[in-house]
Amino acid sequence: MIAELIFAGTELLLGQILNTNAQFLSLRLAEVGVDVYHQTVVGDNSGRIEECFRLALTRADVIIASGGLGPTTDDMTREALAQVLCRELVVDQPSLEHIRSFFAQRGRVMTSNNAKQAMIPAGGRAIANRLGTAPGVAVEHEGKLIFLLPGPPFEMEPMVREDVLPSLASRQPQGRVIVSRVLRFCDIGESELETRLADLIAAQSLTTVAPLASLGEVSLRLTAKAAGRAQAMEMIAPLEAEVRARVGQYIYGIDSDTLAGAVVGLLARRGFSLAVAESCTGGLLSHLLTEVPGVSAHLRLAVVSYSNEAKRDLLGVPEALIARHGAVSAPVCAAMARGVLERASADLGVAITGLAGPGGGTPATPVGLVHIGLCGTDGERPVRSHRFTGNRWMVKRRAAQQALVALRGELMAAAEGSARDA
Amino acid sequence: MIAELIFAGTELLLGQILNTNAQFLSLRLAEVGVDVYHQTVVGDNSGRIEECFRLALTRADVIIASGGLGPTTDDMTREALAQVLCRELVVDQPSLEHIRSFFAQRGRVMTSNNAKQAMIPAGGRAIANRLGTAPGVAVEHEGKLIFLLPGPPFEMEPMVREDVLPSLASRQPQGRVIVSRVLRFCDIGESELETRLADLIAAQSLTTVAPLASLGEVSLRLTAKAAGRAQAMEMIAPLEAEVRARVGQYIYGIDSDTLAGAVVGLLARRGFSLAVAESCTGGLLSHLLTEVPGVSAHLRLAVVSYSNEAKRDLLGVPEALIARHGAVSAPVCAAMARGVLERASADLGVAITGLAGPGGGTPATPVGLVHIGLCGTDGERPVRSHRFTGNRWMVKRRAAQQALVALRGELMAAAEGSARDA
Repeated sequence: MIAELIFAGTELLLGQILNTNAQFLSLRLAEVGVDVYHQTVVGDNSGRIEECFRLALTRADVIIASGGLGPTTDDMTREALAQVLCRELVVDQPSLEHIRSFFAQRGRVMTSNNAKQAMIPAGGRAIANRLGTAPGVAVEHEGKLIFLLPGPPFEMEPMVREDVLPSLASRQPQGRVIVSRVLRFCDIGESELETRLADLIAAQSLTTVAPLASLGEVSLRLTAKAAGRAQAMEMIAPLEAEVRARVGQYIYGIDSDTLAGAVVGLLARRGFSLAVAESCTGGLLSHLLTEVPGVSAHLRLAVVSYSNEAKRDLLGVPEALIARHGAVSAPVCAAMARGVLERASADLGVAITGLAGPGGGTPATPVGLVHIGLCGTDGERPVRSHRFTGNRWMVKRRAAQQALVALRGELMAAAEGSARDA
Repeated sequence: MIAELIFAGTELLLGQILNTNAQFLSLRLAEVGVDVYHQTVVGDNSGRIEECFRLALTRADVIIASGGLGPTTDDMTREALAQVLCRELVVDQPSLEHIRSFFAQRGRVMTSNNAKQAMIPAGGRAIANRLGTAPGVAVEHEGKLIFLLPGPPFEMEPMVREDVLPSLASRQPQGRVIVSRVLRFCDIGESELETRLADLIAAQSLTTVAPLASLGEVSLRLTAKAAGRAQAMEMIAPLEAEVRARVGQYIYGIDSDTLAGAVVGLLARRGFSLAVAESCTGGLLSHLLTEVPGVSAHLRLAVVSYSNEAKRDLLGVPEALIARHGAVSAPVCAAMARGVLERASADLGVAITGLAGPGGGTPATPVGLVHIGLCGTDGERPVRSHRFTGNRWMVKRRAAQQALVALRGELMAAAEGSARDA
């Protein structure tokens, strides 16, 4: 079953709101095994909305349109569909009653333009709106199924869960579902990953493997179509096992996991406390870690020590060391990691010092040079030095990402060590 | 000039990522007066991508496609466009060199699939990708302008700013330049702003005024259509003067200014140094401030003091104060601001303590309660307490935003005071 999604609203075309409804509908439809081939956003223009419906009717079995069901003159989805299907709009009496009581309950007068929300194409079915005034609409037309839903997510989402998805599931030929599982990688590039998995990616069958890159990390989507969720997961399992056998050491999580979340999870598993000293990332590493609920049990202290005084007074970095090597240097980075660990009496210290730019670069210390240091209770690890390209924005992000990669590596090694000790 | 946006990526149709590129492109195009009538999302399927290009060529002057330019086999936007335009793909030598050196700089081997990213339709122009491997592409075809851009936002956005928008601006028909100026507000709500400017917003003529709200702030877009840029700016000037006369105290900047940038600008103007103590925002305030180049001259120290020990040992918050009022309290917040100021010998200290959740809330200290304190060399200011709604993600962002609002207010008052003294 192929679905097409249409979103009506000039505010979307002007970029004034983010189209979260597209993601919500796509996710839910994928879960019940309905393929979405097109999503279209169109403005509040009756001619163009009609065109979208006509085009969708030529290439989809199910059309779901969201937005444009409200009371104002620029709400015209209902009228456009009626026009395309050559059907009249008729009053749905229960919907009209609902709208009247909605206003009455709030002690407000129902202005006359609200009544038009109770109009639905003849032969259609109204979908009750528990949280607003405009009902949804379901219409069957020449074997196709068309849904009109309100634009506000809190009104649309219950209708999708309670009406649209059950309606579609009951029409699925033999309960076909699509299940996806996303594996999240760090410390490996997209093309390197694709090369190592080329045969799996090429063998597109009932299961598919597709890589996806974003800033500093790569994901791999494993998808299976089957009669049921359990069966789809069974098809994915051997594929995932094969991927893990080849490149498992780069996988930090699945689905919506984050690298910071993986690091906090490892801290929790080890019962470790962490202390952070940042220079060029300016708090970004700490910010990413504190996006993870529960981190407060592990993040003992974070310091942004831009100035040499802060490095000296707070982190105990010897002034002579800074004078000899410069603030952006591996020895100072190691001393920062040790200093913040000792200051916080933590189990693990991490330090970042570098030059995010745009100014301040020299041949010896160019913009983009970043050192990342770790220190455990048994001493400092060798400092890793990176030369990142890109602007200040990018350097900060790549540096924080690499610090998370380093932390993950350290915590995994520690976990392995303790497993061997045990 | 009418533009159509095409987004290629099965991950969008499966709902695995949110289409933030659609919002970014739509906003930027609106700012330069280009109308967007359709946005379409299509999967990694060459036939369907081709269809989208064919349809867009019938109804738009400018086509901007994002996604599907990467090295892997499911990246096929470039090939689809070449097919539709009946042009060959040819190697763009500078792009190939760039990709090679991109890998070389990182000490990684360039796998052969990366070379295909340097192919562009014959007669087209490559757009350099400073932050990744795949170049963008600009092609003129029968009077239409087509851009292919990478999917990752951090690669796409600089190309839009530095190449696409200037290209489009230079093609706006003679005698019809659209110039926009965005005024950025803080500390005032959208509806309050709309009420105060209702007559200006209603009087849509050659100049228009449109408000736009996003997380914690409001913008106002002033737009004028005229024969030339200078003339358009002349039309905007009196409108802007009227807006500033009514609500000027809430305007912190224009166009792409940020609130953090405004705060750093005020620090520079006053010659002030700043010290930051964060609890629930976990480094976000410091991160936002350090997005601004040049902040290192003013941000003396930032501390993320989640733990009571850090508050006591580093910031000198008396243990008895924490025991009596709790870590999330106005007195502790004031003591943190004073403590970090003294610790860093700064001119101004700011402290945030609160509960971002999701756990840990009590009737007395509910999730979302956040205190913001300031301290100058002449003592603490009254602590401002907020009760933010939303999840952890939202609470962190709103709290950091309000701390910036407080800093701006303090620095503006200080500037006024010194002007009076002089």
